[in-house]
Amino acid sequence: MGLNASQKIIKNHLVKGEMIPGKEIAIKIDQTLTQDSTGTMAYLQFEALGIDRVKTKRSVAYIDHNILQSGPENADDHLYIQTVAKKHGIYFSRPGNGICHQVNLERFGVPGDTLLGSDSHTPTGGGIGMLAIGAGGLDVAVAMGGGEYYVNMPSIVKVNLTGKLSPWVTAKDIILEMLKRLTVKGGVGKIFEYTGEGVKTLSVPERATITNMGAELGATTSIFPSDDVVQKFLKAQGREEDFYLIQPDEDAVYDEEMEINLSLLEPMVACPHSPDDVVPVSELKNIKVNQVCIGSCTNSSYVDMMKVANILKGNTVSENVSLVISPGSKQVLTMLAENGALASMVAAGARILESACGPCIGMGQSPSTDAVSLRTFNRNFEGRSGTKSAKIYLVSPEIAAASALTGHITDPRTLGEYFDIEMPSKFLVEDNMIVDPSEDGREVEVVRGPNIKPFPKAKALGEVVEGKILTKVGDNITTDHIMPSNAKLLPYRSNIPYLAEYCLTPCDEDFPRKAKENQGGFIVGGSNYGQGSSREHAALAPLYLGVKAVFAKSFARIHKANLINNGIITLVFENLEDYDKINVMDELEIKDALTQIDNNIVIVSNKTKDEEYRMIFDATDRQRNMIRYGGLLNLVKRINN
Amino acid sequence: MGLNASQKIIKNHLVKGEMIPGKEIAIKIDQTLTQDSTGTMAYLQFEALGIDRVKTKRSVAYIDHNILQSGPENADDHLYIQTVAKKHGIYFSRPGNGICHQVNLERFGVPGDTLLGSDSHTPTGGGIGMLAIGAGGLDVAVAMGGGEYYVNMPSIVKVNLTGKLSPWVTAKDIILEMLKRLTVKGGVGKIFEYTGEGVKTLSVPERATITNMGAELGATTSIFPSDDVVQKFLKAQGREEDFYLIQPDEDAVYDEEMEINLSLLEPMVACPHSPDDVVPVSELKNIKVNQVCIGSCTNSSYVDMMKVANILKGNTVSENVSLVISPGSKQVLTMLAENGALASMVAAGARILESACGPCIGMGQSPSTDAVSLRTFNRNFEGRSGTKSAKIYLVSPEIAAASALTGHITDPRTLGEYFDIEMPSKFLVEDNMIVDPSEDGREVEVVRGPNIKPFPKAKALGEVVEGKILTKVGDNITTDHIMPSNAKLLPYRSNIPYLAEYCLTPCDEDFPRKAKENQGGFIVGGSNYGQGSSREHAALAPLYLGVKAVFAKSFARIHKANLINNGIITLVFENLEDYDKINVMDELEIKDALTQIDNNIVIVSNKTKDEEYRMIFDATDRQRNMIRYGGLLNLVKRINN
Repeated sequence: MGLNASQKIIKNHLVKGEMIPGKEIAIKIDQTLTQDSTGTMAYLQFEALGIDRVKTKRSVAYIDHNILQSGPENADDHLYIQTVAKKHGIYFSRPGNGICHQVNLERFGVPGDTLLGSDSHTPTGGGIGMLAIGAGGLDVAVAMGGGEYYVNMPSIVKVNLTGKLSPWVTAKDIILEMLKRLTVKGGVGKIFEYTGEGVKTLSVPERATITNMGAELGATTSIFPSDDVVQKFLKAQGREEDFYLIQPDEDAVYDEEMEINLSLLEPMVACPHSPDDVVPVSELKNIKVNQVCIGSCTNSSYVDMMKVANILKGNTVSENVSLVISPGSKQVLTMLAENGALASMVAAGARILESACGPCIGMGQSPSTDAVSLRTFNRNFEGRSGTKSAKIYLVSPEIAAASALTGHITDPRTLGEYFDIEMPSKFLVEDNMIVDPSEDGREVEVVRGPNIKPFPKAKALGEVVEGKILTKVGDNITTDHIMPSNAKLLPYRSNIPYLAEYCLTPCDEDFPRKAKENQGGFIVGGSNYGQGSSREHAALAPLYLGVKAVFAKSFARIHKANLINNGIITLVFENLEDYDKINVMDELEIKDALTQIDNNIVIVSNKTKDEEYRMIFDATDRQRNMIRYGGLLNLVKRINN
Repeated sequence: MGLNASQKIIKNHLVKGEMIPGKEIAIKIDQTLTQDSTGTMAYLQFEALGIDRVKTKRSVAYIDHNILQSGPENADDHLYIQTVAKKHGIYFSRPGNGICHQVNLERFGVPGDTLLGSDSHTPTGGGIGMLAIGAGGLDVAVAMGGGEYYVNMPSIVKVNLTGKLSPWVTAKDIILEMLKRLTVKGGVGKIFEYTGEGVKTLSVPERATITNMGAELGATTSIFPSDDVVQKFLKAQGREEDFYLIQPDEDAVYDEEMEINLSLLEPMVACPHSPDDVVPVSELKNIKVNQVCIGSCTNSSYVDMMKVANILKGNTVSENVSLVISPGSKQVLTMLAENGALASMVAAGARILESACGPCIGMGQSPSTDAVSLRTFNRNFEGRSGTKSAKIYLVSPEIAAASALTGHITDPRTLGEYFDIEMPSKFLVEDNMIVDPSEDGREVEVVRGPNIKPFPKAKALGEVVEGKILTKVGDNITTDHIMPSNAKLLPYRSNIPYLAEYCLTPCDEDFPRKAKENQGGFIVGGSNYGQGSSREHAALAPLYLGVKAVFAKSFARIHKANLINNGIITLVFENLEDYDKINVMDELEIKDALTQIDNNIVIVSNKTKDEEYRMIFDATDRQRNMIRYGGLLNLVKRINN
């Protein structure tokens, strides 16, 4: 039975487990990437591992998120990342060098390799034939240290592309069609592997637009097996030697199959406020546009930009539209500056932003109240633009540029004859904004501005775990309650002691004080404790405050994993009424903890009430070891030493 | 007795008063400019005047300050300015079109005309031979309505420039020499008029660098009389017809004279934290640089940028330096994009920011903690960069670019042979980002996002002024106490009702509530009430809250004027011990107010205590009329109707 390309890459990297969909596997990671919003924590965690040099083939730290720098925190974070990268063998892509995913395609992506990135759009690398997965900072830190990445084996979906795109129809429309068909939940636990005749007609950046926005399907990743298109792209980037052919076997078997006939697609738009609310642009009449944003890791390649420049050339942006363009990388920006395309854009009235994520992550260019904003980006969630009432539509660069000129949502087919932009046979290669790591890391001093605080470390489990109940909360507490994240707190993502002052304060404003006065203790939660965002900080702040265990009626899946990763015990009441018996400031105790931790039922004593509770500890052997040795980092350190 | 150029322009525009230094004069204003940080309030004030169309020769609204747009407030402000401008006959320079002072030079500045701008660097226009003065928004609003501008007749200082700048010595070094000699207080009440053989060697943008930074001398303005250099510049901008020769008479008399021999100057640096802490660059050894910022209204012209591009070309920005460049206007940026200079900058690793004020006003690019930042800007006050501990040095573009490459403060004379950049004989003129006003303003609807609130209007004086004492504060209360200004409140500069909730709260957190519950009333202040920043908002917020008079031991000059401009009576205790007799919530009354307002002594009754106080009302006749008719706006309306 033949293998598909995804299975081949996984098989080549399999360290543990069997390739049975839904079963846990562990794979070796060849490359990692971080960006600056998640990167500081990932490197603090890597430092906590105590490993001198990264053990990957290549690890790169990018600066592309927090580049507005309102206050010293961002620049402090950048300096920390630059120096910690240099010390530990990590390449550093300087601010201005571009968006991580775009630069990775251009300069580092290798077909057949695995890439783990602390950014949800890491699957962009699938456009060049990598198995590229987004993950949390701790997973990336462990991977940099040579540890395997644990994930449930995904189902592999064959997406057969037939036909050929019509003029003015783009790769963006292919992924919008996928979203229309499958919805934002349609990809959970899956890898989309694109095959068929239609693939040959798509360039690497076009493929990358599709794999990038596979993240919006909820997919584990997406991939285009490598072929001569990839080979030519790599040659044009001066790195033909990085080419590796990874193709499905003739008799490859997939878990699911689907087909898209490219010839039948038309230009499409994802309407507010979800990437899967997709309609043909022809159905949207007379919608006035206030802002158009072109760029992001989805649509900021050289060809995307050249198409935009061609549409804008000699015209003027509508009086009522603010058009902003962020080319994806220094390579792209330099080429546009050299060939006159950038001059055409500026002359038409485009505002050129830095090569970075920019408005896509709400980092500036928030539109006016109630504005309609057309964006070539990948997400249009309510409020993500920074303007709660704004209506964000996701579109191709062609629709974006056409609409910027007319001032209303415009079908690009009305622009007349299509022009084709050739992929360059040679890109402008100049890696002077990528800093090589130091040969000998010992000579490098890591600069920690006042915003960079050491990462809190869990301790190995003792014979007895004891403490007071610090707070007791109700059902459906989110990670936003546990660790609020807002404009005021975001610059402190690398400063857990500061963040900890806000831990659980939306529920109990005295929680941080009580935790510190009692040298830590326990939290009692209701059902679905820790739902919402996957942020690790909701585990790190309690860890910093000395929380040893959380007792709850039930846990949200990711938060529970984050707590265990950080050495905090997660116990579920066997008898839900026990929840009512426990009061704040009761003293609890887990005796024989080192023994009990191997059991599915843990007995917890309430010394204040002289009661005992049976609690369920539902965990894998690996997770039990994390609790035993003090979290994932200590477990990995133990395995390494 | 001959006149100098400044006197000639003033004489041509004199409406009231005599040209005796220190005496109040009123002059007619030909042109106005606003930027978006002060502009919203200026236009709200203009609207309050009730005038359909501006009465100036030309008024332009620029967007160059708040262009990062973190949240909808900035975009809402821009949309308000765009629509209010269109309605009332004001040209609108769209975001991305450039920095107001740079664009004014390029497209609108007319030698011999007067320009009033709601920005302190408006004197930049003196580089082209305008009498260009910075003022508050209300003054600009009145000028747009055809009202004269009141100012004390300045002393005119002749600055005789002899010799010729050596290679690598620049216009920036001339103004730094002025600051070194005269300090930041040396220009108060003065106009610096530059003459002599040295002037002929300076281009318009070089002259503008000097007049721009004359603001840092505290000068009323600075001016270079117009000549054939100006004529050529205007011709290259396609508007030779705007040239007007304004030269001092042969026998012109000045109030003061000084001389600078350009041949003796060397490259200089203003050290932290004052523009007058100037030393030769050669004295600064081994100072590591973390950031270099090139641009701002001081040094962002085409020639400045071309010099920078020449230095950067083929090199790479030092690994430890973040270099950001903001070209001054769309004209400059387009020319750089067309001729390859921008490509050289990007290739070298420069981060290109929008054509706007940017880091100069702390709008992004805050350096890291304790960083050394070299900037071609005009101010280096502590904390202005957004990073309190940063050390900002002010330098020429040449020093900036040279230092960006080496990573330490570098004397550009070490770069070797000097290259001269020719002024273009033809600039790229394309005004498509300047929106013409509507022919018929009635058809234009002014868009007021939720952040745009009507401007509070003072009422004409009644026969009796009565109310309660709302609060009583001590000595040396600043306008920061009266109307706090911080990152949280700055986006609400066009929203007085919102700001008013914070009025005087640093002294008395109940003040806004008490004022509203009592339908306004009075404030009792100590000595030097209202010192510090000149912000009008410190008068507007009390006006909104219904404050009718402030009784104080003494007033700071500008705040007192702002209060009277807004129809709030300013009375000083004749007997300072009366201050102690008044308590919060006492009911006070000014009887026969319409009569008393013409007296130097006003009798105020305390109905609660059954006492009377003699208070001094020190004001000009014009100010008495402002109180009578309800502030400057109502006075102007009355005169117009």
